Amino acid sequence: MGNFGVCYYPEHWDEERIETDISLMKDIGISYVRLAEFSWHKMEPIEGQYDFKWLNDVVDKFADAGISCIIGTPTAAPPAWLMNKHPEIFPVNDMGVRVTFNGRHHDCQSNKTYREYVKKIVTEMAKEFGHNKNVVGWQIDNEFGNGHGDLCYCDSCRQAFIEWLEEKYKTVDNLNKAWGCAFWSQEYNDFSEVFLPAHTAAGKNPSTELDFKRFCSDLIVDFSKAQIDIIRQYSENQFITHNCMGFADKVNYYDLAADLDFVCHDQYPGGFYLQMPHEDNAFLAQTLELMRSFKNKNFWIMEQQAGPTGWNIMGRTPAPGQLSLWTAQAIAHGADKITYFRWRTATFGTEQFWHGILPHSGKPGRRYDEIKYTINRYDELLDEIKDLESDAKVAIVYSYDNYHALNIQPHNPDLSYVGVLADYYRALYDLKIEADMVSEMADFSKYKLVIAPLQYILKPEVKEHFDEYVKNGGHMCFTYRSGVKDENNICVSDCELPGLLSEMTGIEINEYDCLRETEVTIDLGQYSGKGKLFADIITTKEAERVGVYTNNYYSGETAISINNYGKGLVYYIGCELDDNLLNKLIYSMLLQAKIEVKYKELDRGIEVVTRKGKDKTYIFFLNHNNYVAKLNKDLIEGIEVMIGEKNGLLEPFGTAVYVKEK
Amino acid sequence: MGNFGVCYYPEHWDEERIETDISLMKDIGISYVRLAEFSWHKMEPIEGQYDFKWLNDVVDKFADAGISCIIGTPTAAPPAWLMNKHPEIFPVNDMGVRVTFNGRHHDCQSNKTYREYVKKIVTEMAKEFGHNKNVVGWQIDNEFGNGHGDLCYCDSCRQAFIEWLEEKYKTVDNLNKAWGCAFWSQEYNDFSEVFLPAHTAAGKNPSTELDFKRFCSDLIVDFSKAQIDIIRQYSENQFITHNCMGFADKVNYYDLAADLDFVCHDQYPGGFYLQMPHEDNAFLAQTLELMRSFKNKNFWIMEQQAGPTGWNIMGRTPAPGQLSLWTAQAIAHGADKITYFRWRTATFGTEQFWHGILPHSGKPGRRYDEIKYTINRYDELLDEIKDLESDAKVAIVYSYDNYHALNIQPHNPDLSYVGVLADYYRALYDLKIEADMVSEMADFSKYKLVIAPLQYILKPEVKEHFDEYVKNGGHMCFTYRSGVKDENNICVSDCELPGLLSEMTGIEINEYDCLRETEVTIDLGQYSGKGKLFADIITTKEAERVGVYTNNYYSGETAISINNYGKGLVYYIGCELDDNLLNKLIYSMLLQAKIEVKYKELDRGIEVVTRKGKDKTYIFFLNHNNYVAKLNKDLIEGIEVMIGEKNGLLEPFGTAVYVKEK
Amino acid sequence: MGNFGVCYYPEHWDEERIETDISLMKDIGISYVRLAEFSWHKMEPIEGQYDFKWLNDVVDKFADAGISCIIGTPTAAPPAWLMNKHPEIFPVNDMGVRVTFNGRHHDCQSNKTYREYVKKIVTEMAKEFGHNKNVVGWQIDNEFGNGHGDLCYCDSCRQAFIEWLEEKYKTVDNLNKAWGCAFWSQEYNDFSEVFLPAHTAAGKNPSTELDFKRFCSDLIVDFSKAQIDIIRQYSENQFITHNCMGFADKVNYYDLAADLDFVCHDQYPGGFYLQMPHEDNAFLAQTLELMRSFKNKNFWIMEQQAGPTGWNIMGRTPAPGQLSLWTAQAIAHGADKITYFRWRTATFGTEQFWHGILPHSGKPGRRYDEIKYTINRYDELLDEIKDLESDAKVAIVYSYDNYHALNIQPHNPDLSYVGVLADYYRALYDLKIEADMVSEMADFSKYKLVIAPLQYILKPEVKEHFDEYVKNGGHMCFTYRSGVKDENNICVSDCELPGLLSEMTGIEINEYDCLRETEVTIDLGQYSGKGKLFADIITTKEAERVGVYTNNYYSGETAISINNYGKGLVYYIGCELDDNLLNKLIYSMLLQAKIEVKYKELDRGIEVVTRKGKDKTYIFFLNHNNYVAKLNKDLIEGIEVMIGEKNGLLEPFGTAVYVKEK
Repeated sequence: MGNFGVCYYPEHWDEERIETDISLMKDIGISYVRLAEFSWHKMEPIEGQYDFKWLNDVVDKFADAGISCIIGTPTAAPPAWLMNKHPEIFPVNDMGVRVTFNGRHHDCQSNKTYREYVKKIVTEMAKEFGHNKNVVGWQIDNEFGNGHGDLCYCDSCRQAFIEWLEEKYKTVDNLNKAWGCAFWSQEYNDFSEVFLPAHTAAGKNPSTELDFKRFCSDLIVDFSKAQIDIIRQYSENQFITHNCMGFADKVNYYDLAADLDFVCHDQYPGGFYLQMPHEDNAFLAQTLELMRSFKNKNFWIMEQQAGPTGWNIMGRTPAPGQLSLWTAQAIAHGADKITYFRWRTATFGTEQFWHGILPHSGKPGRRYDEIKYTINRYDELLDEIKDLESDAKVAIVYSYDNYHALNIQPHNPDLSYVGVLADYYRALYDLKIEADMVSEMADFSKYKLVIAPLQYILKPEVKEHFDEYVKNGGHMCFTYRSGVKDENNICVSDCELPGLLSEMTGIEINEYDCLRETEVTIDLGQYSGKGKLFADIITTKEAERVGVYTNNYYSGETAISINNYGKGLVYYIGCELDDNLLNKLIYSMLLQAKIEVKYKELDRGIEVVTRKGKDKTYIFFLNHNNYVAKLNKDLIEGIEVMIGEKNGLLEPFGTAVYVKEK
Repeated sequence: MGNFGVCYYPEHWDEERIETDISLMKDIGISYVRLAEFSWHKMEPIEGQYDFKWLNDVVDKFADAGISCIIGTPTAAPPAWLMNKHPEIFPVNDMGVRVTFNGRHHDCQSNKTYREYVKKIVTEMAKEFGHNKNVVGWQIDNEFGNGHGDLCYCDSCRQAFIEWLEEKYKTVDNLNKAWGCAFWSQEYNDFSEVFLPAHTAAGKNPSTELDFKRFCSDLIVDFSKAQIDIIRQYSENQFITHNCMGFADKVNYYDLAADLDFVCHDQYPGGFYLQMPHEDNAFLAQTLELMRSFKNKNFWIMEQQAGPTGWNIMGRTPAPGQLSLWTAQAIAHGADKITYFRWRTATFGTEQFWHGILPHSGKPGRRYDEIKYTINRYDELLDEIKDLESDAKVAIVYSYDNYHALNIQPHNPDLSYVGVLADYYRALYDLKIEADMVSEMADFSKYKLVIAPLQYILKPEVKEHFDEYVKNGGHMCFTYRSGVKDENNICVSDCELPGLLSEMTGIEINEYDCLRETEVTIDLGQYSGKGKLFADIITTKEAERVGVYTNNYYSGETAISINNYGKGLVYYIGCELDDNLLNKLIYSMLLQAKIEVKYKELDRGIEVVTRKGKDKTYIFFLNHNNYVAKLNKDLIEGIEVMIGEKNGLLEPFGTAVYVKEK
Repeated sequence: MGNFGVCYYPEHWDEERIETDISLMKDIGISYVRLAEFSWHKMEPIEGQYDFKWLNDVVDKFADAGISCIIGTPTAAPPAWLMNKHPEIFPVNDMGVRVTFNGRHHDCQSNKTYREYVKKIVTEMAKEFGHNKNVVGWQIDNEFGNGHGDLCYCDSCRQAFIEWLEEKYKTVDNLNKAWGCAFWSQEYNDFSEVFLPAHTAAGKNPSTELDFKRFCSDLIVDFSKAQIDIIRQYSENQFITHNCMGFADKVNYYDLAADLDFVCHDQYPGGFYLQMPHEDNAFLAQTLELMRSFKNKNFWIMEQQAGPTGWNIMGRTPAPGQLSLWTAQAIAHGADKITYFRWRTATFGTEQFWHGILPHSGKPGRRYDEIKYTINRYDELLDEIKDLESDAKVAIVYSYDNYHALNIQPHNPDLSYVGVLADYYRALYDLKIEADMVSEMADFSKYKLVIAPLQYILKPEVKEHFDEYVKNGGHMCFTYRSGVKDENNICVSDCELPGLLSEMTGIEINEYDCLRETEVTIDLGQYSGKGKLFADIITTKEAERVGVYTNNYYSGETAISINNYGKGLVYYIGCELDDNLLNKLIYSMLLQAKIEVKYKELDRGIEVVTRKGKDKTYIFFLNHNNYVAKLNKDLIEGIEVMIGEKNGLLEPFGTAVYVKEK
C-alpha cells in the first residue's frame, strides 16, 4: 500500500462510475480509499436489516485494482428511521433547544438507547469486514465533537454527569469542597441534586464548568472506546484510528488517542471557509506538530484539502501550487500518509461546495494534475522518511485543562489560550526554528528550551516535572497567569503568585492589571515595544529583571524576569508582547540555550522543517509566498537537493527537499 | 370612484370623529377607504357572535359621502379569546420558540383549527358585505409573510409539509433522489419520517431547505385561496386583492397573484424605518416595476407613505415635496390607484409613530396640504393613463427559486440575489433607461435586451425560452453562478459550467474563485475597474473575450465574454462589476442593441419614466434631488408640458409630466 | 459603631481564619460587617432543619471585637435541594427558556411556593437574630433585579400580572381602553385572557409593555415587603435596608425605599468590568446623587469597590489613590457609611476575580494600606457631616415611567433616557455646579433651576407641580419628546405637542425629525454647534427664540426657546445638543437664574462638592486626574483646609476638604 489515499463515496454516484474513478485513481497514484463513514442507512436501511453487499462489492472492486480500503463507522449520522423512533437522541443545547434532523452529529453520546443501536451496527460491520484482507483499517465516527459546539444538556447527560461526578468525588462533601459550593449557596446534599451548567440567570461556577468540559470529553472517549472494543473483537490485522481536528477543544485528544493505533488529522489550510484567505502558515505548522504530540509519534492526514472549501459559504480557491505545498508541509511535519478529501465534489447535500480533486462534472482538471504531480513527487520520499522524528530543540506545552479554564474565564475578552500559544510558535517559526508541541508531562529531555505559556492551572506533579527538567539544566519560559489555580479551577491562596512556580521563577506577583482595550509600553534594554492582554507587576526575589514597564502607575516595575535555577534558567514574561518584541526576546533565549539559529535571514513565508533519521537528515524548504524565492548558497552548503530545483530556487508556492548524510 | 384613497380605522377613534374625517377626506379628494383588516374582535367579539353593525354604519356613512370602501379580512390578527382557546395556533420558530400574543401575524397558516375559524369569519363577512354596492372590493389578510420571518416549524406544519412532499414526489424514492439523501445518511423510508429543516447540530440539506421555502409559499397561497373562494361565492362586482411587499421572499407573488384580480403594493420610500435615510431611488423604481410584473399589468398602491414611519424606532421625516414625488413615482411606474397609509396617526398600539396624513391631534398640517396638492395634481392624469404600458426595451429576470437558493447558499456572505439585481437595474437607471422586471417565462418579444443575472437554478424549459429569444435576435446578459443547479437545488454534473447555458454563451468555466473580502481587477479595453463577490475564470469557446482579469493567478484570463448566437447576442459577466464598470458595459450593450440612450446626461437623481398609450406618450421627470434642476431644451423638444413648470425647471423633489402626441 | 465596614464571608474560609481577619479589620478601622446574604444552605442545609450556630458564633466573635453585624436574607440564591424539589421556581425568559442552577437570582418572585420557603427562612432568621444586640440591621435579598435582565415570563408571573391588572383596572373595558387594544384586534373579554408581552411574531403593544415593567417592579417591592414585615415583627432596634444599583431599571427604587429605613448603593467606579476604563466621573457623581433622592436623605454604600472587578472578564486595576478618591466622592455626595466589598478575594465561585481588600492569599498589600489610610482620613469627618444636606441650586428630574417608556420606544436607537440625563448632569459638572437628582413630585422650592429632560409621559399632577414652581419664580428646562404621552403610554391627541407643557413653554410643535445617523446644525447667536438624536421644529407662540436650525428643510426654524411664565422662566430645547453647545446654554441658564459659577475655571476632572451644615460648610475638591493639580489662591480664600495639603495642591487622584464657618 502506497502513501496517498482519497475519501470516496460510491453511494453518491451511479454504480458504473466506479470503474472510471478507479482507473483515474490508479493514474494519479492513489493506493487506498476511506469509505462509508456516513452510510448508516445504506448499511441498515430498516432497523435490524443489514445490507453490506454494496460495500463488499466496492471493496472487492478496489481489491482487484490493488487499492486498499479504510472503513468508517457511521455513527456521526444516525438515520431518519432511528431519529423518528427515538427523538430523545437529538442533543439539547444550553438554552434547552433540541436540535433536529437535516445535518449531522445529531446524536447525544450519553443516550443509552443510542448506544445500543451503535453497538449493533458496529458489531455487524466488524463481523462483516473484520477479516477482509483488503480492509486495512477502521475510522471511528467522524470528527468527534464537531457540531457539538454546544455540548449536550439533555436529561441523559445530566444523569451521566452525575454518575461521572460520583465516580470522581466519591462523597458529595468532596464535591462541595472541590467546587467551592459555599459560594452563592451552591452546596449539594446529594449527587443527584447537581444541575448541568446550562443557561443561568447570572453567573456560573467555573469549577462546575471545567468538570463539565472534562466529562463531555470523557463521554466522547468512552463512546469511541465502546466501538473500538467491538471492532478489536472481530478484527484481524486492521488498525483503528479517528480523524481529529487540530486545536478543537471538545475532546482531549491525548485521552482519545490512547485507545487508537494512531491518530489522523483533517487539514484545511484554506480554513474552515470562514477565515480569509487561509490559516496563518505558522499556525498550520503548529497544528501538524500538535497532532504529532497526541501519541508522540507520526500521524496520518485523513482529510487533506483538495480544492476550495465551502458549505453555504465558500473559501478562496487554492492557487496553483498551494495544494502541493500544503501536502509537502504535512509530510514535513510528520504525516506518514496523505488522504485527500474528497475524490469528486458532491453534487447534493450540505457539502456541495467542499470541492474534491474532481469537479462536479467528474472531469480531471487543474487540481487532478497538481495532485498527480504531488503524489509522484513525494511517494518515494514518504517511504524513506516514515517514522523519522523531528529534530526540534524547543517545545511548547499544550494542556486541555488550561485551554478549557481560560475559555471559561478569559480575563481579557481578547485573550485566547490557543492564540497565545500561536504567538509563541510564530515567533519561533519566523526565526525558522522548529518546535514540538508537547503535553505537560511529556519527556523534555531532548529539548534545550521548553516554553509553557499560561500555566494557569498547575498541578503539583506537573510543577515537579518542570522543576526536575530545569534543575537538570533545562531552560523554561513561563508567562503571566501561571500558577493561579489548582486542578479544581480554584485560586491558590496559600502563597502569592505565581503559586507553585514561585521558587523556580524567583519572583512574586502582588499586583496585576487586565489590559482591557489598552496596551503597556515595555523596555527591554536594546529594544522596546508594547505589551497587551494582561500585565503582571513583578517583584524579583532571586530573579533578575529583563524588561520593565514604562507607562502606567507601574512604570519602572519589572515586566520580564530571568532566574538561575539549579543548572537551568527560568524566564517569566509578565504580559503578551508585540510580535517584534517577542521575536527579539525569543531570539535571545535561543542564543542563551545554545540553539543554532541558522535560517533566520530567509524571507518571511519560507518555512524550514527537518526530519532526522539515523543516517540522513531531510530538510524541507517550503515557500508559502507567491513569488520565486532563492536560498543563499551558504544555507545549502553541504546538503544535497533531493526534490526540487538544484540552484536553490523555490517556485511560487514551491518546495525543495535537501538531504544531509550523517 | 376616483384614484386616491386612504387606510382608515374608525374603531381607533371616538364615534363622532368620522364626520370630521369624512369632510376632510372630501376636501383633499379621497374617494375610497380601506377598512377593517385588523378588526376581528370588533366583528366577532365572542366566538360565534358576529357584530357588523358598526362596520355597516361606517360603510353607509362613506356611501352618503360618495366614498367607496375596501374591506380587509382580519386574519393577520386573530383575537385573544381564540388564541387562549387554541394556543397551538401560535407559530413556532426554528429554535422551537412558540411566539405569543401582543403583536400581529401570530397565526400558523397550516393549523386546521385556525382554518375553521378563518372560514367562519370570512364567510360571515362575505355574506354581510358581498352585495353591498359601496363595498367595491376586498383585501385578503395583510402583508402575507410579514412577521413570518422565521417561518413556522410546528407539528402541524411538519404534517402539512409531509403531505406537500407526498403530493409532489409520489414515492419516497423520488424524494430521496431529488434531495440527494444519500449524503450524510439522510434517506427516508417513508414520507412520515421527514423532519422540518429547523435548527440542526451542524449543516442542512439545501434541497430540503428550498422545498421548505416553496412549501411555505404554497401554504400562504392556499391560505389566501381558501378565503378568496369563500368571498367569490357571496360577492358581486367586487374585486379581490392583497397588499404585497415588493421584494419580500415569503410568498411567491406570481403564484399569489394568480388568484387575485390585481395586486397591491405597500410602498415606503422612507424605508421600513430601519434604513437611512430612505431606500435608494433606483430600488424604489425597481420595486414598483417588480409589482407590475406579478400579473403583467398595472397595480394599486394599498399603502403609500404619508409621513415618518416608525414602531419603536422612527425613520426620518419626509422633506416638503417628497410625499408628492414618491406618489408621482408610483404613478409613473404603473400604479393605477394610490392609497395612503394612514389617515390619522394612531395614538396607541405598536404603530404610534407610523405617521398618517393627519398627526395625532387630527389637525390638518403640512402633510395634509401636500397630499391635497398631490391628489389635485394627478387625479385627472391617472384617469387618462390608466392601463397604459411601459415602453421599456430592457427587462431584468426575477425568480423566486434563485432568490431562495442563493439565500440558502450565498457562497459569499456579501452576495445577495436582490442586491445583484439592484446593481443591474441601477446601472440602467443611472443611464435613464427604463427596464421591466419579468419572470423567467415571460414574453420577451418586446425587449431588445434581457438581463438575467444569477441563473443559478436553471430549468430546461427556461433555458429553451432564453434560447428561442436569442435565436430570434434578442440580446441576453448572464452572470457568474448560472446554470449551476437543477430545480432540486442539486449541482449539474453532466457538463461543465455554465451548464445548460454552455452553448448559448459559447464558453466553459473550469475554475472559479469566491472573492471573500477581496476584489479582482478587470480590464475592459477602454476602461478598467474592479470586480467582487465571485470570479468565474472563463474559457472562451465560440465566444469572444470582452474583459480580462489583471490580478491573481488568473491574470490574463477572460472575465467577460460575448457570443453571437442565432440572430442574437449573449453576454456573460464573470463577476460582480463595480458601479462605474458596470455602467460602461451596460451602455455598450444598449448601443449594441440599438436602444436610444437619450437622457443619459441628466443629473443623477433625476428619474425618467415613460408610459405609452395609443395616441400619446407620457414622460415623467422626477427630481429626487433637494435642489432645482433644469431639463435642457433639446431634451424637451417636441414634447409638451402637461403637469409642472413650463421652462423645464424641476423644483427640489419636484416633478413634471410631458406629453408627446403620436 | 464607626463609619466603615466590610462585606465578609466567613463560610468561604477555614474556621480559624476569622481571628486573623478580625485583628486586621481592627487594624484598619473596620467597625461593622455585612454577613450571610448568600448563605441559605448554611442556614437551612435540609428542608426545615435550621442551623444558625455558625452564624451566632461569628456574630459573637465580632461582638467581642466591638464590630457590629448586618445580616442579609439569602433569598437571592435558593439552594439546590429547593430548586430540585420545585424547579418551577426557576425563571423563564421571553423566549420560553427556563434558567437553571449554577449562578444566582434563579428565583421567580411571584412563585407562591417560593414565597412560602422565603417566609420560613426569614422568620427563623428574624427570630434568631432579631434581638441580638450586635446585629444592628438587615439587608433584604441582594441587588434586586440583577440577573433578572430578562424579567420572568412564567405561568405564575402571568397569573400575578393578571391579578395586578385586575386590581389596577377593575374592568376589562378599562384595560382595553387604557392599552388601546382596538389596535390589531387586541381586545380582551376577560382579564384571564391577557398574555405576557413575551416574544411575538411582529411588534408589541407599548402600553402592555409599560404596565409589565411596572408590575415587575411592584412584584419585587412586594417580595421585599413580605420579608420586611416578618423582620419588623421579631426585630428590635435594627434597621432594614437593601443594596441598590444606581440607575438600574428593574425596580422603582422610590417604591422600594418607602419600606426601608434607608437605602444602600453598590458603587463600582471601575465599572461592572464591562466598561473601559471606568465609569465617567460625572456619571459616578450623578449616580450617588440619585441614591440620595430615593428617600430624600443620605444613604450608605453597601458595596464600595475595593480592587479590580471581574467575573470571567476583568476590569482594570485601580491606580494608587483611586480607591481613596472614590470613597471620598461617595462621602461628599451623601454616603453616611462606606462598606467595602469585599474583605478578601474569593478563591472559588463566579466572583474569583472580583477583588476584595485582601488578595487571594489573605496577605495585606497595597489596597489594604490605601483603605487603612482612607478610613483614618475620613472617619472623624463622617461623624461631623453625617446627615448634612447638599447645597445644590439645580435639580434634574428622574422618572421610572419615562425611563421604561423610552426603553420601549427609543425613537432613535442612540437615544437613551439615562444617557440624556447624564448629558445634562455632565454639563453642570463640567461647570463645577452641583445638582440634585429629584423625583417628579419632589419639593423644588430650594432650587433656582430645575431641568426636566424627556418629560415624555407627563401626568396632569406632575404638570401642575411644574406649573406652580415656575409661576412662583422657578426656572425650568424641558426638552424634545415631552408631553407626548399619557400615563398609559398613549399619545396625547387633544392638543399639539408639547401637550400639557404647551402653555408653560409658550410654543407649539407641529413637526419633528428623528435624526437617525445624522446631525443638525444650530445657531445660538454667540455660539453654534450641532444637535443630534431628535429635532423638534418649534413654533414660538408666547416664547422667544434662543436658537435656530441652520440646515435641512427646517433651516431657520426655532430649535431652542425661552418663555416668561408667571414669575419664572421656561426653556425648551428641541434636540440633544453637542457637549460644548449644551455647556454654553446651561451656563447662560445659570447666570439667568443668578446661580454663582465659581469654580468653572478649574481643570476638567476636578470635582467640587459642598455639604452644608448649620454652622459650617464643607467643600470637597476631588482630583480625578492622574497629575498634580493646584487650586488657585482666590478659590480657597476664606476657607480653611481640613483634610489634605495646605497649599491648594491636589495629588494625582488626591482630595482635599475645606471648611467655611458660617
